Amino acid sequence: MFLVEGNKIICELFNSKFKIKEILSTDPQKLDRKDISVTHISDNELKKISFLKTPKDSVAICYLNPEEKSEDLDIQLVLDGIQDPGNLGTIIRLADWFGIEQIICSEDTVDFYNPKVIQASMGSFTRVNMVYCNLVEYLSGTQNVNIGTDMEGENIYRFEKPQKMNLILGNEGNGMRPETEELLYKSISIPRFGNSQSTESLNVSMAAGIILGQLFSK
Amino acid sequence: MFLVEGNKIICELFNSKFKIKEILSTDPQKLDRKDISVTHISDNELKKISFLKTPKDSVAICYLNPEEKSEDLDIQLVLDGIQDPGNLGTIIRLADWFGIEQIICSEDTVDFYNPKVIQASMGSFTRVNMVYCNLVEYLSGTQNVNIGTDMEGENIYRFEKPQKMNLILGNEGNGMRPETEELLYKSISIPRFGNSQSTESLNVSMAAGIILGQLFSK
Repeated sequence: MFLVEGNKIICELFNSKFKIKEILSTDPQKLDRKDISVTHISDNELKKISFLKTPKDSVAICYLNPEEKSEDLDIQLVLDGIQDPGNLGTIIRLADWFGIEQIICSEDTVDFYNPKVIQASMGSFTRVNMVYCNLVEYLSGTQNVNIGTDMEGENIYRFEKPQKMNLILGNEGNGMRPETEELLYKSISIPRFGNSQSTESLNVSMAAGIILGQLFSK
Repeated sequence: MFLVEGNKIICELFNSKFKIKEILSTDPQKLDRKDISVTHISDNELKKISFLKTPKDSVAICYLNPEEKSEDLDIQLVLDGIQDPGNLGTIIRLADWFGIEQIICSEDTVDFYNPKVIQASMGSFTRVNMVYCNLVEYLSGTQNVNIGTDMEGENIYRFEKPQKMNLILGNEGNGMRPETEELLYKSISIPRFGNSQSTESLNVSMAAGIILGQLFSK
């Protein structure tokens, strides 16, 4: 099972493929659902259950969904070892914004049922299909064009988007694995405009947002 | 005074306008600077000083800089009540990436010397000039074209960037203030591509990244 916190996100579960076992709420009036068990709890009880520093109003206990990969879609994200739950949540939210309905993850990508991922995705996890698999096998077999992201890739402003593509995002510290890089058609990158001598790159979720914003402009 | 944590960011201070009073380090060998007092401290002492859950190697105690507004630059960010330190840090980092050298903040925008802002900016605060002022006065007097951001603005993909512009980003919950909106030439927004019924918008720093990525594509 996994937890979803806060009425706002919990309400997005009602019309999703996720099934709720029960809800524990400090304000059960607001969740008037006859088909789901809602138990009234105190603020103190919520505090003990919640993963959040500042608990919200309710906690829903949900069933894990059986993982099911759909056919490859025209644009998909592929995550090669994303570790930070906040980054994964943000990437799921981005995918939802841009209408990307499936994300393929390497087996060592952080679990999307992690409470921090669920909260950072702001309910978007209900609309994006998450698949965990062996990336080398997947990338070798897909008909989509595999496009990586790194600091030395083709300028995104000049890049011609293929009709069917996977956009591959690498690990926060190490980028994509060499085995993944071998299966790429090419890589793209965001040019740096500042004169900054900093060696810092953009955070992976921010880079994903800027790249998707550009891909969808065409 | 304010704190900067971690040798990586501390080293970016050396070539900046910020002056260091002293450094406390668990590994002073790595910071071989004869002009700055570096004191060797234990891991336990660092733990007591640090604002981070997982303290890094060193803490630098720095002098606040006198605030000084430079002339309006061709592209500036204007922040109308950004509250979250992580968002401000991320926005400073974005500005640095895109070579935006000045950010104008409303007086109620979170203090950029807040340790969470400093850490989230990853050293970019040393390269972006931060000015706090009365926004109504500033926006009324500037020669830059004031362009806001909201959910109903002109599609960014069709927007023609003026030569000199301020991009105004509003508060996380409430957006721009009405007094600010009155001083806008127009607003722009990122179209939503998904069919999502979610009412969620993108996080303000992510929206800033996608908009800047698009503005700089032209």
